[in-house]
Amino acid sequence: MSDAKTITNKPSPTIDIKKSVYARNEYLAAEFNAALTQRGIFCVNVLGAPGVGKTTSLIQILRKLQNHGKAACVIEGDIESDLDTQKLNSLGFKTVQINTGGACHLDAPIVEKAFENLPIYDGFLFIENIGNLVCPVEYMLGEHIKLLICAATDGSDKPYKYPNAFEKSDIILLNKCDLIKHIDFDMEFFIAGVRKLNPSAPVVEVCGTTGEGFDEVVMWLLSKAQAIV
Amino acid sequence: MSDAKTITNKPSPTIDIKKSVYARNEYLAAEFNAALTQRGIFCVNVLGAPGVGKTTSLIQILRKLQNHGKAACVIEGDIESDLDTQKLNSLGFKTVQINTGGACHLDAPIVEKAFENLPIYDGFLFIENIGNLVCPVEYMLGEHIKLLICAATDGSDKPYKYPNAFEKSDIILLNKCDLIKHIDFDMEFFIAGVRKLNPSAPVVEVCGTTGEGFDEVVMWLLSKAQAIV
Repeated sequence: MSDAKTITNKPSPTIDIKKSVYARNEYLAAEFNAALTQRGIFCVNVLGAPGVGKTTSLIQILRKLQNHGKAACVIEGDIESDLDTQKLNSLGFKTVQINTGGACHLDAPIVEKAFENLPIYDGFLFIENIGNLVCPVEYMLGEHIKLLICAATDGSDKPYKYPNAFEKSDIILLNKCDLIKHIDFDMEFFIAGVRKLNPSAPVVEVCGTTGEGFDEVVMWLLSKAQAIV
Repeated sequence: MSDAKTITNKPSPTIDIKKSVYARNEYLAAEFNAALTQRGIFCVNVLGAPGVGKTTSLIQILRKLQNHGKAACVIEGDIESDLDTQKLNSLGFKTVQINTGGACHLDAPIVEKAFENLPIYDGFLFIENIGNLVCPVEYMLGEHIKLLICAATDGSDKPYKYPNAFEKSDIILLNKCDLIKHIDFDMEFFIAGVRKLNPSAPVVEVCGTTGEGFDEVVMWLLSKAQAIV
């Protein structure tokens, strides 16, 4: 019996196909990004695992942007259902739904098609990706930045287990911080894990239900947008 | 401008490739399943989003199986890191790590290879899949049953948004139930969502940190195992 305890997945024949899918998508995403920039639209790809509070956080951000007089629209990505789109539209935030019907990520062409339904020129476009901490990271959508949301209730080991998402994000929100007092969350371990992968992205402690921490997030978004579009 | 608010992803050229990958994997999984059954091993594919408490729940289950005099081994699937394998081995539960290095799910060949490192004949084999509520559902690993873990802290809308995982699971654990009193969780909505997809799978409220609810889970696993292997 071998002493080896860690098995590493071998490259499979699908890898080359994936590479060309990525390359084609990146080309289309870059084109779409240029078109958005030209129209004065700052685009945010919102990433996170299922249930971390992506929509709740978006609502806080959209309200605060509205207070700053900024226009914003949302593209909602889900495997199925339009629960979040219904909620956002009922709050007055113009939202269009993408249902992937099983696909684990959004890609640039489907986002560009959804965008045709949104009446926006200057302002912010948020794309809420499929709840998945793995696949969406590999597909550019035309965004200017990636905003990663994780939940304190999911534990402090996430950066160690899902490094790509933490490495590639421009800002990281640690949501559900109001529940930290009830759970075993090691903040030092979490931050050390993030910093090993990503030395510069702001990590902001937030609470989607109370709005705590979102002023800082919105000020950061406004300054980024001003510098780019 | 179109009135359509929901965009559905069109079939892409990758679909046919995926279908043949699924078919090949299912064939290998069925072969592996037959080999396990012959050796008296009951195999459980443990599914769940990142941070729902898959490893914590496994520890509760493994301890209780040990009290019933049952042997059990674990295959741990992660993108990166072997934190959970270290934890399980330190508690005396024989565990082997698979690192997929980016891949979003396990498949039958990689699991069969990892299994060669586990000394087990009669008993239970648990495979902790990659933390992902989407892709792993499509890949059979040779399991007799799928055990889905979700966390109350992730919200009550998960069955509506990730229907495949709920539809295909044989037992569903609702973890972190000790935190329900601190959050806004609609149990009726959650159960209605599950039942629409899956009329018969037991839904068990558990708490990975205290062990609450796991006696019922283990009694169910024992009776299933007795009927099959």
